[in-house]
Amino acid sequence: MKHSSNSVRQSQLFTKTRKEAPKDEVSKNAQLLIRAGYVHKEMAGVYSYLPLGRRVLEHIEQIVREEMDAIGGQEVRMATLHPSEPWKQTGAWDSVDVVFKIVSRTEKEYTVGQSEEEIVTPIGQEYVTSYKDLPLAIYQIGQKYRDELRAKSGIMRGREFTMKDMYSFHETQEDFDKFYQVAKDAYLKVYERLGLVAKATEASGGAFTKKLSYEFMVLTDAGEDDILYCDKCPYCVNIEISTQKEGDACTRCVGGTLARATASEVGNIFDLGTKYTTDFNFTCKNREGQEVHPIMGCFGIGITRLMGVIVETFADAKGLVWPEAVAPFRVHLVELTSDSADVHSEAAEVYRELSEAGISVLWDDRDARAGEKFADSDLLGIPLRVVVSEKTLSAGKFECVHRASGRVEHKSISELLGHLTA
Amino acid sequence: MKHSSNSVRQSQLFTKTRKEAPKDEVSKNAQLLIRAGYVHKEMAGVYSYLPLGRRVLEHIEQIVREEMDAIGGQEVRMATLHPSEPWKQTGAWDSVDVVFKIVSRTEKEYTVGQSEEEIVTPIGQEYVTSYKDLPLAIYQIGQKYRDELRAKSGIMRGREFTMKDMYSFHETQEDFDKFYQVAKDAYLKVYERLGLVAKATEASGGAFTKKLSYEFMVLTDAGEDDILYCDKCPYCVNIEISTQKEGDACTRCVGGTLARATASEVGNIFDLGTKYTTDFNFTCKNREGQEVHPIMGCFGIGITRLMGVIVETFADAKGLVWPEAVAPFRVHLVELTSDSADVHSEAAEVYRELSEAGISVLWDDRDARAGEKFADSDLLGIPLRVVVSEKTLSAGKFECVHRASGRVEHKSISELLGHLTA
Repeated sequence: MKHSSNSVRQSQLFTKTRKEAPKDEVSKNAQLLIRAGYVHKEMAGVYSYLPLGRRVLEHIEQIVREEMDAIGGQEVRMATLHPSEPWKQTGAWDSVDVVFKIVSRTEKEYTVGQSEEEIVTPIGQEYVTSYKDLPLAIYQIGQKYRDELRAKSGIMRGREFTMKDMYSFHETQEDFDKFYQVAKDAYLKVYERLGLVAKATEASGGAFTKKLSYEFMVLTDAGEDDILYCDKCPYCVNIEISTQKEGDACTRCVGGTLARATASEVGNIFDLGTKYTTDFNFTCKNREGQEVHPIMGCFGIGITRLMGVIVETFADAKGLVWPEAVAPFRVHLVELTSDSADVHSEAAEVYRELSEAGISVLWDDRDARAGEKFADSDLLGIPLRVVVSEKTLSAGKFECVHRASGRVEHKSISELLGHLTA
Repeated sequence: MKHSSNSVRQSQLFTKTRKEAPKDEVSKNAQLLIRAGYVHKEMAGVYSYLPLGRRVLEHIEQIVREEMDAIGGQEVRMATLHPSEPWKQTGAWDSVDVVFKIVSRTEKEYTVGQSEEEIVTPIGQEYVTSYKDLPLAIYQIGQKYRDELRAKSGIMRGREFTMKDMYSFHETQEDFDKFYQVAKDAYLKVYERLGLVAKATEASGGAFTKKLSYEFMVLTDAGEDDILYCDKCPYCVNIEISTQKEGDACTRCVGGTLARATASEVGNIFDLGTKYTTDFNFTCKNREGQEVHPIMGCFGIGITRLMGVIVETFADAKGLVWPEAVAPFRVHLVELTSDSADVHSEAAEVYRELSEAGISVLWDDRDARAGEKFADSDLLGIPLRVVVSEKTLSAGKFECVHRASGRVEHKSISELLGHLTA
């Protein structure tokens, strides 16, 4: 995994922790992220990501990028300021209520993208002339905007949010179905790498399509949705569209029973059919020499939403708990203030050695009480805390505390390096 | 330099070159970038960046990021959807004509950021309480939006564009001046790494401030501005605000003479004084224990603009010419179609060896005529073309053509590897 290896001294980091979240912030994820200095709230549903939050987002994005590249996705950066014309062409300008409308002083109308079908379809049309150019999958990671009536759930459902959106083009329905399976596996790999337990569920198509869609749900007590899943096979369905109930026998396998769980949506796939290629009169030659409208798919993963789900899933009473793969740093090096200069120089040495080995370290080199440092460390949620103090100096081993489990070990610097670079 | 090492087979790349640019596209940079498939035009002043264009942007961004990190800049991602309130607080909502105004269906007013003083000042205010927290430099790389009456110059002046914007906070004017020098050197290093010759000029402050500002100008025949610069010392001034003319003696050094040149602006620095900290009532304790308004600076580099300037500066009659540091790939491996399967397997071997050595390669493995392949290769502008053909097979050496100079060399694979990894 590509992990940002640059280490930071906490005395140089401009953010600080705070005791209280803003009163108007009701969601657990935003409360904790604000208190820990990961995000700054601009208004309901809009947040800025400060250095620690940016690092988490980048780690999530890199995992998503690697898995999209692995299935042949080609990364682009589409415009986010859109002319109104293609939105009128697809009807979304008037029918989709979350489309922001901008009237320019030139009297031209624009929107800021809440999705990119209106942009990507003409791009596909520009380059695809034959089935030989298909299948094609184009994706990007960038900002999306939705004119939500009420923004709630902190960073999990915003008026502005970061999303990976991929669009695929296919000659036939069979080819779409084949690619759907490939993309589904890539999605499940993403969630697994993030330390989450996810299931692909069948759901209703939503605003975009009348067809069935697929949602990816992370099982978490903090979930907003109710799902039924088979205890034996991968079958899973959003309770909203299920005709079955908890305890029923699974209809997809022999011997499975349906269990109920709360879950959070962390991705979706829409079979767009030929809706957009028809709207834009986008055709290409198929194998039989006929001009056909390619079938499109839309594959979304909310990056900021995923960050929120990770917070909700793992955080405990003391604060954030980051899975190793997305943590802003791998090690929180906590130096306890001491009259002995040796403690500081020992901490500096650990900082140097770990950083040189490519391990990202946040070094708490601030002049503060031990209790404050430990409370901050718990709140920040970095996976491994390494404590340097007069006590550890005399022992020759450092106290290493695993944030998630609370497990304590004592390791020498070489044991620590061995553990972290294994 | 951190270069994306992943190589691509051209037959898999969804973009293709085209003979003609759209008729409404008058700028050289956009014409070439569209013809070569680097960008897709959405409307005047708004472009999507396709895989090749995205790679160039990422390389520019990484160079900028490294130099901003080196001077202590802390990277964040600020919101781009802004509530109108802070814009009204600073007066910009009504006084800055390029501010896009969005009226939501909730009747709340928003804008999409054309600059981020309205967002970053409250963030600074949240965390800075004392001179001990200063100086502070916060930066981001992201999208900006301007409601331009006329968008021209292709990707060099858009309604949407990518920018690195850094904001600094200082206790005293002396400290701002000191940081300005540090940032100026970092800027000049960025341009040098991009292969450009840049100068820091004095200019008028523009919309943001009545104070003097600094512009960074790249000397290029395609430039939109006229500057006077000393042929002996670093002095340089925008002709608009100069009281001197070409041929005059330099007033900043002994023996220098002012020369005139056309140039393109590729960065700027504004001394914002206490305008924004006063507007937001942001104070902190200074060394004497008094509450003072910190002094702010704004440091911009247009990323997409820089890409346009690079195109304008280096492109020739045959197409794009990328400096090594920003090219989408380091090597364009051109396999000439042959009846001999050996040519293809030899090309595959070169592709594998270079890629494994961390060198990014675009491999033209398409079934096309040599003339078409060479014309495409010239248009794409990748620094080094390596040709594999029946002729090179029998010689045991590959024809290597440097795009910028046209220089031709013949190298074995090990000589090539030695050259590229040196």
